[in-house]
Amino acid sequence: MNLKHLVSEIRKKKSFLCIGLDTDLEKIPPHLLQEEDPIYTFNKAIIDATNHLCVAYKPNLAFYEAYGTKGWRSLEKTIVYLNENFPEIFTIADAKRGDIGNTATRYAKAFFEDLNFDSITVAPYMGRDSVEPFLAFTDKYTILLALTSNAGAFDFQTRLIGEKELYKEVLETSKTYKNTKNLMYVVGATKAEYLKGIREIIPDSFLLVPGIGAQGGNLKDVCRYGMNGNVGLFINSSRGIIYASKEKDFADAAAKEAAVLQNQMARILEEVK
Amino acid sequence: MNLKHLVSEIRKKKSFLCIGLDTDLEKIPPHLLQEEDPIYTFNKAIIDATNHLCVAYKPNLAFYEAYGTKGWRSLEKTIVYLNENFPEIFTIADAKRGDIGNTATRYAKAFFEDLNFDSITVAPYMGRDSVEPFLAFTDKYTILLALTSNAGAFDFQTRLIGEKELYKEVLETSKTYKNTKNLMYVVGATKAEYLKGIREIIPDSFLLVPGIGAQGGNLKDVCRYGMNGNVGLFINSSRGIIYASKEKDFADAAAKEAAVLQNQMARILEEVK
Repeated sequence: MNLKHLVSEIRKKKSFLCIGLDTDLEKIPPHLLQEEDPIYTFNKAIIDATNHLCVAYKPNLAFYEAYGTKGWRSLEKTIVYLNENFPEIFTIADAKRGDIGNTATRYAKAFFEDLNFDSITVAPYMGRDSVEPFLAFTDKYTILLALTSNAGAFDFQTRLIGEKELYKEVLETSKTYKNTKNLMYVVGATKAEYLKGIREIIPDSFLLVPGIGAQGGNLKDVCRYGMNGNVGLFINSSRGIIYASKEKDFADAAAKEAAVLQNQMARILEEVK
Repeated sequence: MNLKHLVSEIRKKKSFLCIGLDTDLEKIPPHLLQEEDPIYTFNKAIIDATNHLCVAYKPNLAFYEAYGTKGWRSLEKTIVYLNENFPEIFTIADAKRGDIGNTATRYAKAFFEDLNFDSITVAPYMGRDSVEPFLAFTDKYTILLALTSNAGAFDFQTRLIGEKELYKEVLETSKTYKNTKNLMYVVGATKAEYLKGIREIIPDSFLLVPGIGAQGGNLKDVCRYGMNGNVGLFINSSRGIIYASKEKDFADAAAKEAAVLQNQMARILEEVK
């Protein structure tokens, strides 16, 4: 999917919501555990109930790898279901991979070719030759970790390199990589005030913003500081939506939570028109 | 496996060699492609031919994920084969994972419980709460990326935070994490001279050193600067060993290459006695 298409979907649906599929057998409704593939059954129900309210889904790879081959198969079925039935949805493999060229190329093939995701999250620590193999796929998007929403972000990301925080150095340096028009960034919502400085460095890029809901970020602040002319934001919510209920009504309950966020987004998009 | 056991294996085998299982269908001997599971067949043959020469195997996850569910199954079979037949071998999941607490715990379960690896490589960018969930498994080892052997290492890892390079800051900060006795570190061999400074910060930890062979590091220099009283080193070689031949003799050829390194290691261990 190209950016123009993505932005037009956002305008049409009045939503820039991304739903995180952190699907955990210990948290899904217990009645699903009798199904042959509870993870896929859960994901499919969530997708069917919420796809009109969001523009992206983001399976978190850890939750699938935790179940080995079975989990990987549930992931494959989920992405095939999304691609076949909702080609207008942007898909994000939240994998946070990062390794040297030869290995990075393997990861890129796994997620872009084999699984056919639109994008993948990538860690910056190993630098240029760990990121460019992903960027070489010019019809796909590489979402680089910049500033994350967890407490550990202060260990290194906000430390000063000269007069600039490491995460800003990551943003600046990444602009010199090949095919940067295919770069997006992860920026945690718990630090909305940082978005102003971030937008000075990367005014045009899409930002994937986790941390709304369970992690406590504020949607209005994020939009005030982070939105650009193309909207330029995915706001992710995972647990707050998908685990809204443990009963048989779980999919409806998820849709209700997603609608709350989508309504707020519609209002914000109306205001900035 | 505990450290004492590992060190005794190193002394017994006169080897601190780790063999990287970066198994790639495009590089393995073509006659194996007729097998039902070429990746596992290749790995098993390499393990059978080399296990007396090395103390560790390190499957690189990217190469397995690139083949989806099939690849994941080959990985499962490989680790089961290792654990059942060679319990004295230290196993490393080269996964370079890094994510927030809740997700990191899932990855830890995937690699430590489901797959039963002895250790996993982890990226430091997201800080404390992305590393401690791995360290919580006190019978397992967490191998943190510090200084990698690729060109991109200079993008961020060697940049100064105050008067200290980021990779040294990672070493220092990681010492404040919980259960640091279970920490090991990745330190690239292409920068052997850096090992002196690294040993000043973490004198006792084991280092996983890639970059010997295909990436050009020098074994003697690495040992001079990096060895400690417990040896304290895994020297990894992947492509230089496992792809020594594309013919039917591939496993023997791999053993020959492994023996060259093991012989050098035996001599070095003899010298420092």
